[in-house]
Amino acid sequence: MGEHITIAVDAMGGDRAPGEVVDGVVEAAREGGIRLVLTGNREIVEKYISDRKLSTAGIEIVDAPEIIDMSESPASAIRRKSRSSIAVAMRLHREGKVDAVVGAGNTGAMVAGSLLSLGRLPGIKRPAIAIYVPTRREGTILLDGGANSDCEPYNLLQFAIMGSVFAEEFLKRSKPAVGLLSIGEESSKGNELTRNSHQLLARSNLNFIGNMEGRDVFKGDVDVVVTDGFVGNVVLKFMESIISYINSMIKEEMRRYPISRLGALMMKPVFSGLHSALNYEEYGGAPLLGVNGVVFIGHGGSSRRAVKNAVLASRRFVESGINEKIRSKMEKRAGDHEE
Amino acid sequence: MGEHITIAVDAMGGDRAPGEVVDGVVEAAREGGIRLVLTGNREIVEKYISDRKLSTAGIEIVDAPEIIDMSESPASAIRRKSRSSIAVAMRLHREGKVDAVVGAGNTGAMVAGSLLSLGRLPGIKRPAIAIYVPTRREGTILLDGGANSDCEPYNLLQFAIMGSVFAEEFLKRSKPAVGLLSIGEESSKGNELTRNSHQLLARSNLNFIGNMEGRDVFKGDVDVVVTDGFVGNVVLKFMESIISYINSMIKEEMRRYPISRLGALMMKPVFSGLHSALNYEEYGGAPLLGVNGVVFIGHGGSSRRAVKNAVLASRRFVESGINEKIRSKMEKRAGDHEE
Repeated sequence: MGEHITIAVDAMGGDRAPGEVVDGVVEAAREGGIRLVLTGNREIVEKYISDRKLSTAGIEIVDAPEIIDMSESPASAIRRKSRSSIAVAMRLHREGKVDAVVGAGNTGAMVAGSLLSLGRLPGIKRPAIAIYVPTRREGTILLDGGANSDCEPYNLLQFAIMGSVFAEEFLKRSKPAVGLLSIGEESSKGNELTRNSHQLLARSNLNFIGNMEGRDVFKGDVDVVVTDGFVGNVVLKFMESIISYINSMIKEEMRRYPISRLGALMMKPVFSGLHSALNYEEYGGAPLLGVNGVVFIGHGGSSRRAVKNAVLASRRFVESGINEKIRSKMEKRAGDHEE
Repeated sequence: MGEHITIAVDAMGGDRAPGEVVDGVVEAAREGGIRLVLTGNREIVEKYISDRKLSTAGIEIVDAPEIIDMSESPASAIRRKSRSSIAVAMRLHREGKVDAVVGAGNTGAMVAGSLLSLGRLPGIKRPAIAIYVPTRREGTILLDGGANSDCEPYNLLQFAIMGSVFAEEFLKRSKPAVGLLSIGEESSKGNELTRNSHQLLARSNLNFIGNMEGRDVFKGDVDVVVTDGFVGNVVLKFMESIISYINSMIKEEMRRYPISRLGALMMKPVFSGLHSALNYEEYGGAPLLGVNGVVFIGHGGSSRRAVKNAVLASRRFVESGINEKIRSKMEKRAGDHEE
């Protein structure tokens, strides 16, 4: 598809699809230098576009009438529904017709579809979702954010390698510091997985700074936080909820103290600064590192802004050559750290 | 020691010991109806008391010159240092000289000391730290908060049983709803531990409502959240840090918008309401459920207020007869659910 980078977006993925997804794609197309392919039910997508008289310059629609919903078992759904919006987008990527896939639907189906269509980078046992977490200093990459609920130490080592390359190439950190999420700083503390992973990481040539605790994540002392996908996902969902919990508590307290409402008005720029710092929309989506392609997974609640930012991030990822760097790191280590 | 309930407090435990601990104990003693035993370095404790001319009515000091610090390996330290403030307090409890132990020092040493001196309730394989988490509705009990970093499904079942009894007797919830912390609501989602634990919990006669996600904790829909001590501890420390992170962000944003400072002044009661709702001092300490005794573990940063509240909570625990109820629940299930 020419010199432009081409990105497929799952038009049906996410709680606010297709509307917010299509709007986000239209906004991304306006930035120029990028072609977009919307996969999804052509009729629904075209009707949405024509009802709103949206410009489709640079946007192609590829019909994919099946939908994988959030409650379906990912692996079987992706096999069964070969005409689903996720499966079609992945196929376009495998065939080289697009350079990246962005989707905010069923995370498990995005992972399963990536593995089935694209496969893994050589030597990588499991891909990992790399989430950007805002911190007091610069942001931190936390992985795995939920692709693998049971992990072995060599998985965590590979997450650390991939996360380091990503932090170096995408966030421009030199010698990214890697921390292992555990419960106690000493290498002897933690569970069996973290104790064994600690040893592997300490022997690696990564800039491994040791164990870190839940309370250290926001300090921003490390560039990469490594954990299994179960812990990573629990923590991320917890993080999301605490923000809305604090918001709701502030509102409740404000009802009791009327003068505080005037105060809140004066503090509006403060709250909006806080909101944007903690808002996942700014980061748009999280790359699935370790697959032989470029896949960005968006938050289920993705708005047009989140979709647009995910598209732009996936373009940067394609341009960065991160996968080639992961590939060459893995080649250097070939044969080591197998099960 | 008479009709009063007697509680031993580790005078040397916590970052602010002995000062804040002694102050908290003095305040608790003032409430009446309670005797207190401070275990620790007699010289240091007596000097602190005499320097401040504190009243020692109802307070006894038992000399325990050794200290287990935060970085020591808990199990070996507790064995090696039989004259440490934790070991002495536990021994007083085993000998029936006190009814409960409160300590804010090395958590692992508190757990190891409890197991060594008091042992477990019949049938209980592993004790668990039950943490009170404030929510949008009433609070929730989360366990295990960090006593066991690797768990088996029957451990989680026992945590659920103990947590239910605690929620019923201590928080006065009838038929406490139990949720299993996982990553996805379906029973098929999660890691190996949660999938297998889900089956055990579903077959139990607990009021098990199924899996819950990190984002559900603050909703307060359940009375008891069950998880392994690794995940529980990561989440709790993460929760603590996000509050100070948000505080620091608000302060930083305020520097950029001077008028917001006036707003902040007007919002002061709102912030202080928020602070007290999220402040662990209000809850003082967390019970170690499953040991054959009453042990409350305080936060390492415990203030006098936290110490006092932990003492009062441990008294309520003694009076509640929770251990007898756990014992009888376990007898009914005797022989089942072993490894």
